[in-house]
Amino acid sequence: MAYFPADPRLLLSDMARPVLPDAPITPCLVVEPTRMKRNIDRLAGHLDHHGVTLRPHLKTCKNIDIAKLLLAGQAGGATVSTLAEADYFHAHGISDLLYAVGIAPGKLPAVIERLNAGMQLSLILDHVDTARACAQAARQSGHRLKLLLEIDADGQRAGLRPNSPMISAIVDALGSDCELAGVMVHAGGSYACTSTADITAMAETERLAALDAVGRLRALGLEAPVVSVGSTPTASLGQCFDGITEVRAGVHVFQDLVMAGLGVCSVDDIALSVMTEVIGHRPEHNRLIIDAGWMALSRDLGRAPDAPDLGYGLVCDDQWASRESLVVAACNQEHGLVSTRDGKALDFARYPIGTVLRVLPNHACATAAQHAGYWLENECSPTANDANRPGRFTEWRWLPRCHGW
Amino acid sequence: MAYFPADPRLLLSDMARPVLPDAPITPCLVVEPTRMKRNIDRLAGHLDHHGVTLRPHLKTCKNIDIAKLLLAGQAGGATVSTLAEADYFHAHGISDLLYAVGIAPGKLPAVIERLNAGMQLSLILDHVDTARACAQAARQSGHRLKLLLEIDADGQRAGLRPNSPMISAIVDALGSDCELAGVMVHAGGSYACTSTADITAMAETERLAALDAVGRLRALGLEAPVVSVGSTPTASLGQCFDGITEVRAGVHVFQDLVMAGLGVCSVDDIALSVMTEVIGHRPEHNRLIIDAGWMALSRDLGRAPDAPDLGYGLVCDDQWASRESLVVAACNQEHGLVSTRDGKALDFARYPIGTVLRVLPNHACATAAQHAGYWLENECSPTANDANRPGRFTEWRWLPRCHGW
Repeated sequence: MAYFPADPRLLLSDMARPVLPDAPITPCLVVEPTRMKRNIDRLAGHLDHHGVTLRPHLKTCKNIDIAKLLLAGQAGGATVSTLAEADYFHAHGISDLLYAVGIAPGKLPAVIERLNAGMQLSLILDHVDTARACAQAARQSGHRLKLLLEIDADGQRAGLRPNSPMISAIVDALGSDCELAGVMVHAGGSYACTSTADITAMAETERLAALDAVGRLRALGLEAPVVSVGSTPTASLGQCFDGITEVRAGVHVFQDLVMAGLGVCSVDDIALSVMTEVIGHRPEHNRLIIDAGWMALSRDLGRAPDAPDLGYGLVCDDQWASRESLVVAACNQEHGLVSTRDGKALDFARYPIGTVLRVLPNHACATAAQHAGYWLENECSPTANDANRPGRFTEWRWLPRCHGW
Repeated sequence: MAYFPADPRLLLSDMARPVLPDAPITPCLVVEPTRMKRNIDRLAGHLDHHGVTLRPHLKTCKNIDIAKLLLAGQAGGATVSTLAEADYFHAHGISDLLYAVGIAPGKLPAVIERLNAGMQLSLILDHVDTARACAQAARQSGHRLKLLLEIDADGQRAGLRPNSPMISAIVDALGSDCELAGVMVHAGGSYACTSTADITAMAETERLAALDAVGRLRALGLEAPVVSVGSTPTASLGQCFDGITEVRAGVHVFQDLVMAGLGVCSVDDIALSVMTEVIGHRPEHNRLIIDAGWMALSRDLGRAPDAPDLGYGLVCDDQWASRESLVVAACNQEHGLVSTRDGKALDFARYPIGTVLRVLPNHACATAAQHAGYWLENECSPTANDANRPGRFTEWRWLPRCHGW
């Protein structure tokens, strides 16, 4: 691990300083803990106010220390998007896990292994053939699989409409071999909303779809105690959770430019950034070259419908302050090409070779997925910094992420 | 690790079979070794015919076993894009490494550590301030850093034009503290070519830029023995390498849809795929849902200029045969939405829940980067397969990838 220069002016005279063993090397993923805690507390307070439980989605953080912050004070378990996450969090003491991707029949033996190991793993499904595979796996293993019916509120991805005739076929196929414990809805369409009022309305659409569907299950004689909804936008801006037993959200822990573009947070709430160093100047193209390409930033160019194009991310200085609207305009594997959003001429003298910058992510899940873990910055105060080394944090803590499937 | 069904018809009756401990779970990254070896041999033969050495770029494979295949019979070393790759390959016996991203001054202490550890690491630079930092690091460490001057042939990314006045300033700044061993050019512009003839012409542009620049270094009194060029397209289709001492290429090991779109290879040469399972049907949207989203496929939507839009990748069956032009039209984190390229109605009966499919990648580097490693399929022959389980490979070998920076 290399000495990590925060101020390029100090770099050349500072080369002989000893290498700090626990400091990151650029590009690296950095979490600012004060912002992160504020994000966690804000959603927890909102849902607490509405009397509904959060089942945090851990696919964004994929780290146990952050998961513990998300789970603090929550009655329920957590949500995961892979069995690898389930294994990792179960190994760290979180047993009640909802695997919120339609179960692939080929993964059922792996699910049974995990139930044998004591994991309380719930699955979701939306097809009668999946129900048949689950019932057979349950009979053969002796485990009464716990399942939620995936319901579609917005036509975006998976799930059945609440009035689908396949619902009763699924109930029949599961029979008594499995527990169909309720319904799950994810209003991914909230990412396409153009106002916070639309997101609040989408949250109500999500809630009503869930209640409609669970009502049909109950009319078929099932207890169906679980009514699970959520996405970060609808969880954050929903104003009614009556009848809902749990809300899922994950991106809120870090927030990102998509969430800021939707009005779910402000850019100053974004707790995740990629630290990078200026390695080149291209005045003829009005571009800086940085050592963070798509490998460090991800290829995610997603943005909110009415948000400006920020390329591969908004560039800030090492103190998280935006600088004259610099964005990462293009990427190669390990190169980022930084330019101004408005086409104005860059002041290259402000960004000498070696300048440390930060890039705020379009999509926190995608950017974080490019890294083996996070560097957690120590909580910065004016006195905590060496006055001669502005912005240079003296303590870094490594938080690993789980990976794979 | 789960039992891995290749034929969904066998799945439901096959659930009680024991879990195979060394089999992959979907989604997973799979390498077909016969295709890979053919790709390696083809480029090696082409460069051998032209009497020039390959310095393979290991940023694509990031695995030592594949690197050894790439290096077989080569006189030179290898190319890397991160110090993490350098560490990994050095630990596995590859010492002569070119780190082909403009050196960040903040990484020089890390470079010195590696030189102290016996790595023969060459760096590249294109700015006089970087040269000053390198010279100072060299003086302070006692290591005569070996550097190549990065030259720009096409205005795509980094590097100086061969006639840049900064070249002599860099030579002066490096003085005798560092060895400026030559020049390096990467014709990334070859990815924007619209014919193989254009790529051949771009290879010549790349070669001439390298020769122009190295001539200027030699006119300044430097020996400058190294003249390094390359990209997979120009390496594969270049017809003259006179004056060139080494060629860099990496993607050719797997090939991908971008390379096929450029005419550098055919779709049947692509040796990398993501195996995935059908988890849902959306007849109202003419879509299958698979358990490979952007986390498994990457967000890379790149394609050759004149190539058709294949979304997040071309879908094949488990025997690598393309099926009625299915593509991954959209992605969420762990969901892929598969549809037909031409808008024709999907025959859902052909793709029951649990069907195993493969997705060929747009960009091998980006897709591979989403995975901790590869599953290497055993070399498949009709007799090697269980006749009752078509396409089911009985042996898999795990090849890990190195990660990070």
